[in-house]
This record gives sequence, structure tokens and C-alpha cells, in this order.
Amino acid sequence: MDKKRIYTAAIVIIGDEILSGRTQDKNISQIALWLNIQGIRLQEVRVVADDMDAIAQAVNTLRAAHDYLFTTGGIGPTHDDITVDAIAAALGVEVVIHPEASAVLHKYYESRGGINPGRLRMARVPDGAELIPNKMSGAPGIRIGNIYIMAGVPHITAGMLDALTGTLEGGDPLLSHQVGCWVAESEVAALLSDVEKAHEGCQIGSYPFFREGRVGANFVIRSVDPVKLNQCSEALKSGLEGLSYPAIDGGI
Amino acid sequence: MDKKRIYTAAIVIIGDEILSGRTQDKNISQIALWLNIQGIRLQEVRVVADDMDAIAQAVNTLRAAHDYLFTTGGIGPTHDDITVDAIAAALGVEVVIHPEASAVLHKYYESRGGINPGRLRMARVPDGAELIPNKMSGAPGIRIGNIYIMAGVPHITAGMLDALTGTLEGGDPLLSHQVGCWVAESEVAALLSDVEKAHEGCQIGSYPFFREGRVGANFVIRSVDPVKLNQCSEALKSGLEGLSYPAIDGGI
Repeated sequence: MDKKRIYTAAIVIIGDEILSGRTQDKNISQIALWLNIQGIRLQEVRVVADDMDAIAQAVNTLRAAHDYLFTTGGIGPTHDDITVDAIAAALGVEVVIHPEASAVLHKYYESRGGINPGRLRMARVPDGAELIPNKMSGAPGIRIGNIYIMAGVPHITAGMLDALTGTLEGGDPLLSHQVGCWVAESEVAALLSDVEKAHEGCQIGSYPFFREGRVGANFVIRSVDPVKLNQCSEALKSGLEGLSYPAIDGGI
Repeated sequence: MDKKRIYTAAIVIIGDEILSGRTQDKNISQIALWLNIQGIRLQEVRVVADDMDAIAQAVNTLRAAHDYLFTTGGIGPTHDDITVDAIAAALGVEVVIHPEASAVLHKYYESRGGINPGRLRMARVPDGAELIPNKMSGAPGIRIGNIYIMAGVPHITAGMLDALTGTLEGGDPLLSHQVGCWVAESEVAALLSDVEKAHEGCQIGSYPFFREGRVGANFVIRSVDPVKLNQCSEALKSGLEGLSYPAIDGGI
């Protein structure tokens, strides 16, 4: 495993429910946090409608541009679940019934009213795909090439991520450290910029908030190098103290 | 105003904090819901890193493909706030200090420690831009062409959306009605598909859940035509009742 190489991922979120505002997405952050631990950086996300062409185009662009592509949503039993068809079309392969998925679904629904055509739809995969176990609700996720096809319901996706933990090649994990301060970020903008410039390989993000009637900010220092991360964090804390703003290690 | 035309919008979310998983996005759903009321459909969202090229590329693709483009994030006072620079580069225009924004910021910070170079950064706009009022925190949003440059902090974006209400041309608003049912969506997949097919101009979305130890689903019927919406909703309710699943009007 090449530790110097940066591994990147993208997500395609498939769902009119997100674009209509009905549902607030929770998969971006949970997949992003999981990817960090695998040493993979989430670099782009696209949310597209339940539309064959829109899905296929996003999938083909992003699977080529990144090491890994995750999709969420559209793999359920109903007519609006078209993700498998769209990805098969994008790859130019047939949709087939996966025998193991079919067996899993038959068994899962044995005590839940029996299998039916809608439920059997969830055994359909692009030809050549493997399954991702789903301990939550029977219907498996799907892997084909570098594409990981996941559920839309966040706790089901969480289970699928669990099943994938440690199976994807990554690089050095991106480490982060947070420093909080009761200060308007605009008071210390020059300091943040100076400290970042003085510490190559570190990025400082500034996240302002308004809480308990006061303005404050958390500053997140990120680096793949733990020594540099520590040096940059210490320099920022000293700088804040130097401006008479007490720094709170770990954030507010 | 042409009521038959469908007006579409896209969002570019600019922020390493979203891609790192640190912050869960709330702007997609609030902008989507606001757009629905304006008669505009959110059709695509991209989340990109705090990177000039990534922002410029997403902005140029989506401003050409949609009636309106919203961006969120990256317009604060710190070094990682590069949205204005990236959009100016995308449009091939200079970055200039907007005199009105400068006046607003001078006034706002008069009682808050005074203006400084970081704070004055928030008066920078792509040449030719107009301001979007921000009653929450001084620094205005920016409109240039069909691009609306908004804050990343959700309550500030909310104030900017308020200021824009009624100013964007839209078409017929997309109406929706929800029907809930204590049923596994896979039990009624065929019904959903049949009812949708029998009602042109209506779409049915299926949103399953697991609650109080039971599976259920909400079905959302969407249409721009209130009569068709009602007919489709009634047909779905009858169909569910016919399968001995009581339908709960308005959803669960």
C-alpha cells in the first residue's frame, strides 16, 4: 500500500426526496466520516434526480475521476427505484438476478409475508456485481468495479459501511485537531492565514458560531502528519493567546 | 410569465466542512423547500471542496444548465473563503470592492470592534454584481447574472432567501400530498406503479420507515395540477384500502 498516494472518493445521492427538500440528507456526513477512517478523502458529491440519464452521467463522470464511487438511494422495491438499471446502463451491462441476493431475500421474507415481484426486484444487479451484506433489512448493497451501491435509509447504509470497513485500500488518514475560541473569526483572519502559510501540509478551517449570546469559532487543523498537525495547532493556540483570546483545546 | 415552462435551479455547496463530515448540510433542504414555493425545481446539487478550479467548473456547468444557480459557503472573512474569487474567475471578471457592501460592513462593525482587512474581504464581489441583503450578520450575499452567492451558515442563508422571496420568476409550483400506511412498501410496490402509470403528470415517491416496532411508509404524490394531484391521491388511498391496508391521509 502506497502511503503517499491520496485516495479519493465521490458520492452520488439519488433521490427526488432530497431535491424536493422533503428529506434532509444524512449520508454525506456518515460516509465522509467513515471514509476518513479508511484513509480516503471525499472530494465531491452530486445529488441527482430519480432519472436514468442524470444518474448514469454522474456515475460515469465520477467513477472515472475517483478511486471509489458510492451511490445512495434508489435500490428499494418500488417503481421509483431505478439505480441498478441506471448504473447498468452507464456501464453498458445487463441487469441480472443475483442468485445469492435472491436466496437472501427469499429467506428474509419467509417470515414476513413471503417473496413477491417487488421484493425480488431487490435481487437485481448489474451483471458482474458482488453483494454488500445488509444485516438490517435483507436487501443487499452492490459492488461493481469501483462503484458501491448503497441504501438511501441512513441506518441501513451504516450497516453496509460496517460490512465494508477495512476492505478498501486507502492512504494515510487525514488527521484533525480542533481549537475553539470566543472570538469573531473576522478578528483573527490574518492570524489564521499566517499560521496556515507557515505550516506546509496543514489546512486550517474556520467555523464560526453564535451561542449563549456570544460569537465564537472553532478552528479545525487538518494534516496527514501528526507532528505537523501538533506544531500547527500549538502555533495557532499561541497566536490566539498572543492576541489575548484564550484558546480552548479540543474546541467549544 | 409562462406558467407551462418548468424553471429549474441547481446548488453548489462549497465547503471542506461538509466533505470532511464535520458539518451536516442543512442548506439543500431549506433552499429546496423555498424554491418549491417560488415555482422553481431544484434539479441538481454538487458539493465541492474549497478549491478554485473545482468551484469554477461546477459553477460554469450548472449556471449554463439551469435557470438559477445558488452557491452556499465560502464568503466569510478568512483565508479559506474563496468563493468570490472562484466565481469571478469562472465568469472571467475582476474582483472589486462593492461600495455599498463596504458601507454596510463599516456600519455593522462600528460597534463590534471596527473594520479590519478580514472584514473588508466580505465587501469583495465579482465585477457587475448586486447585493443580497443580510439582516443577520452584516456581510451581504451577492447576485451576478443567474448566480446567487449565499452564506454557508444556515440561518444567515435563511435570511438571504427571505430577502429574495418573490423576486425570481418561476412556473407553477410543484404541489404534493402525502398518504401514510402501516405497510412494508414492498407489499404494495405493484399498486404504486399502477396508480402512477394511470395518472399522467403525477409522480409517486415511496418513503419507508421503521417506527414503534413496525414498518410503514409515506407515499408522496407530486403534480403541478391540483385536480390531478387529488385524483391520484384518492386512487392510491382506495387501492391501499382495497388491499386491506388503511391509508392515513396526510401521512404518518
